[in-house]
Amino acid sequence: MREIFEAELHQLGEDLVALSGRVEHAVTQAGIALLTADLALAESVIVEDHDIDALERELDERCILLLAQQAPVATDLRIIVTTLRMIASLERMGDLARHVAQIARGRYPRHAVPHALSGTFAEMHDAAVRVARRTTTLLTNHELPLAESIQQDDDLLDELHEDVFTALLGGQWAGTTQETVDVTLLGRFYERFGDHAVSVSERVVYLVTGVLGEQLDRSA
Amino acid sequence: MREIFEAELHQLGEDLVALSGRVEHAVTQAGIALLTADLALAESVIVEDHDIDALERELDERCILLLAQQAPVATDLRIIVTTLRMIASLERMGDLARHVAQIARGRYPRHAVPHALSGTFAEMHDAAVRVARRTTTLLTNHELPLAESIQQDDDLLDELHEDVFTALLGGQWAGTTQETVDVTLLGRFYERFGDHAVSVSERVVYLVTGVLGEQLDRSA
Repeated sequence: MREIFEAELHQLGEDLVALSGRVEHAVTQAGIALLTADLALAESVIVEDHDIDALERELDERCILLLAQQAPVATDLRIIVTTLRMIASLERMGDLARHVAQIARGRYPRHAVPHALSGTFAEMHDAAVRVARRTTTLLTNHELPLAESIQQDDDLLDELHEDVFTALLGGQWAGTTQETVDVTLLGRFYERFGDHAVSVSERVVYLVTGVLGEQLDRSA
Repeated sequence: MREIFEAELHQLGEDLVALSGRVEHAVTQAGIALLTADLALAESVIVEDHDIDALERELDERCILLLAQQAPVATDLRIIVTTLRMIASLERMGDLARHVAQIARGRYPRHAVPHALSGTFAEMHDAAVRVARRTTTLLTNHELPLAESIQQDDDLLDELHEDVFTALLGGQWAGTTQETVDVTLLGRFYERFGDHAVSVSERVVYLVTGVLGEQLDRSA
């Protein structure tokens, strides 16, 4: 009984890594689609988000089943409840990647991000991809310094998000209303993406050390 | 043992209603602060969101404790896991009310929403307040037709959100960039507020009927 449970927990951990890998792929492709105005790529991200949602539901159900069948306590319970929350955050990160792709698709064949902000969004893309990649790695190897790197890139995403507002409101902005709307939403999507990754990384730290990061108190 | 557990579950249900009541208060005050440019009211919403966050954490911990101490199965397990998710949604709704208040505060003494869109945002406010009030009532009395009303108001919020874009992009828009940014974000906050309320209401339906609404598949 115990061995089966351990095997199922282990499999759950592996599938969480797989979910994170899909999110990493989604945000990478979405950002490239955005920065290069690639319609086919944007559409693939939008379609593949269904797979992320399906995987989320499947993992969710397995967590509930484990709770019901094994009535776990202590560490096992902590792992499963925390996994449920990480699944929810990763699914949301997938949604945010899809939102980026939807804006890229909606503006095709034009670029959604005007030239004046393309450098800022290229940096946001790079930071989001690093954050996603490190989240996958952290879920794989539980090397806690990665959580610190994720936090730093989240801080960078917040700064870049501020840069977007500074560019919009600094008096030099010559974009159209559509561009203003798009970069406002895109900035928000990337900023939220970072928040969710920090939330996942803090939950990994919590599982490994039993300490809940103070960041969890910092709601966005 | 069983009686204590039942008493704790009952108390949890009452505290969930209290959490929802606070969210209802927050979104009501935030909307009034937004529509009337009331600085003190906006600040009270921002400050009181700490209470919502504190209540969220407390309820969360009690759910985990109940899982650990009682190792519930079947319906009891379903109630607690579902409650954990409703707590998360309600906390997020509180955040969104705070975001609305933060925009109102940031533009004071001006109105964040320009005259051309004040009617649309007054309607969004009314719909969001109804949604929040009905969520509290639904959590109290489990009368399922309320879930349908919440869904309808969420559809209305989606339509009003579309109306904001139509106004922004229809060629008649004469707002400043700051106004464009603000109404873009405000529209998004109200739209997400409705989504989370639908999520809560569908979880109540799920608890009462065992059927998970198809809306849960519809990610925003």
